[in-house]
Amino acid sequence: MAVYTEVTDEALTAFLERYEIGTLLAYRGIAEGVENSNYALKTTQGDFILTLYEKRVNPEDLPWFLGLMEHLAANGLTCPLPVRAKDGQNLNPLAGKIAAITTFLPGVWPRRVGIEHCEPLGAALAKLHLAGQGFAATRKNGLGPDAWGPLLAKCEGADSVQPGLAAELEGWLGQITAAWPKDLPVGHIHADLFPDNVFFLNGEISGLIDFYFACTDIYAYDVAICLNAWCFERDFSFNATKSRALLRGYMAHRELSAAEQAAMPVLAQGAAMRFLLTRLYDWLNTPAGALVTPKDPMDYYRRLRFHLAAKDASAYGL
Amino acid sequence: MAVYTEVTDEALTAFLERYEIGTLLAYRGIAEGVENSNYALKTTQGDFILTLYEKRVNPEDLPWFLGLMEHLAANGLTCPLPVRAKDGQNLNPLAGKIAAITTFLPGVWPRRVGIEHCEPLGAALAKLHLAGQGFAATRKNGLGPDAWGPLLAKCEGADSVQPGLAAELEGWLGQITAAWPKDLPVGHIHADLFPDNVFFLNGEISGLIDFYFACTDIYAYDVAICLNAWCFERDFSFNATKSRALLRGYMAHRELSAAEQAAMPVLAQGAAMRFLLTRLYDWLNTPAGALVTPKDPMDYYRRLRFHLAAKDASAYGL
Repeated sequence: MAVYTEVTDEALTAFLERYEIGTLLAYRGIAEGVENSNYALKTTQGDFILTLYEKRVNPEDLPWFLGLMEHLAANGLTCPLPVRAKDGQNLNPLAGKIAAITTFLPGVWPRRVGIEHCEPLGAALAKLHLAGQGFAATRKNGLGPDAWGPLLAKCEGADSVQPGLAAELEGWLGQITAAWPKDLPVGHIHADLFPDNVFFLNGEISGLIDFYFACTDIYAYDVAICLNAWCFERDFSFNATKSRALLRGYMAHRELSAAEQAAMPVLAQGAAMRFLLTRLYDWLNTPAGALVTPKDPMDYYRRLRFHLAAKDASAYGL
Repeated sequence: MAVYTEVTDEALTAFLERYEIGTLLAYRGIAEGVENSNYALKTTQGDFILTLYEKRVNPEDLPWFLGLMEHLAANGLTCPLPVRAKDGQNLNPLAGKIAAITTFLPGVWPRRVGIEHCEPLGAALAKLHLAGQGFAATRKNGLGPDAWGPLLAKCEGADSVQPGLAAELEGWLGQITAAWPKDLPVGHIHADLFPDNVFFLNGEISGLIDFYFACTDIYAYDVAICLNAWCFERDFSFNATKSRALLRGYMAHRELSAAEQAAMPVLAQGAAMRFLLTRLYDWLNTPAGALVTPKDPMDYYRRLRFHLAAKDASAYGL
């Protein structure tokens, strides 16, 4: 949890003068969130979220992220809508950072994923994929298969986490990238649709948030990320009832082709590898006393082993 | 900044069933705050603050704090009003802690104190003192003059902060407690009315918050705390224009007697000593990597030296 950049009342009041969303009533730093600084903002016109982009986000990507969110919202997806200033800009400087205001979405993310969450989640993911069609600009996945080798190379000291880990990961990485599918349907994907990015209200999804890993990549890879993020229990056992519900929800809105289905084990392996590697890097490189406690990379080692053992798509209920 | 206790959506939903404030729409941990865990809570009936009391607060004191807040609100002070559950309780268990819901107050605390803030602040402090009259129960100040000696004794390693600091503080402490006034008017005081506990809106005070240091003690001591908290510049110079404004605001609602005025230097010394000692203790005892970064105790050493040099109340513009 973190607010990296403090915003003064004077700076925020001046910032809000660029917009037509009323005057400041209250703002408070939000403890959740890892990558950026977020404030819950209340003005005379309602609730908003103020985000200050921190160093992990490439400023050149911001117009694409915000453009995608606008496109998705315009095409019926409930996601935060960037608010444009009077001059039309949706990114403006604040407290030495680039900042954006987005609409506030009511809803609560599920701290404990239940089976009942998985079908709506799958449906929302498919709707996201469909709603993104027509947004012409693309963004390469900076954490796709090309990035995994260099990332592993930067994980010096991996064997301190588990003896032999570096060599083991290198072996699996070669195997996964060699088998990586080349001709599956591609489009804009969320690429980080974990439970804390999905709001529910009265049993239905009320919004998807945090599009700052979104990119243009294989649709079914986004499904594989969700299988990792939503379908394992706390003891790392795979809950096939959850995966069936997730896939049923997805396929009610967007069919998965035979090729997409067949690729699901390797896509799920790749997704587990991606989160394992970024967590491993953070684990080995987060200074003691940092605001954010790194997450245990070995959670994804265990998921990866499940996917490596999956013979075919039937492991996921396909 | 900190949220020490995580609350699940399921636990919070069940908790809210005790109350008649609608159903959960959203909640987010608030990054500000040091002592307790606070969540911004939105229900179908509006905005609230959810507080989980952490280990620094004595649970036996909670009914007094909440009772005082209810009394103050009933007597016209704008402060958070504890919300009672259907059974009349305003304290209920949540996530292994004792928790309370209070009303949400719009407003923004001044990150940079200006002269224009000080007169309203003084007036609000006097109104708080007057509004507290009639609340019969009392609470001893756990961080009053009796507590300073034992607290200093627990600050092992004080000389690592500045050579000779322990002996210097011990000498001043003896001098301050010997001169401590005995017959000044007493009542319920806030005892921690720093800028981050005072909300402003359109140049006026919109609310006072955080009553978890409130106690029954010398009224003028509360004024002296505010002189420390509001009237020093960032370079630790004392701004007498601010103190005059603060005292003018206060005395417009509650006169300070000749004895109260005469005691202001020693009260201000005591107030500086109190914050110096608690900060020094935290500085020496906060483990590396704690969620909250301790504040530099020497900020109050410098304030204390100013007050020790004050010949009489004229130093504060009285």
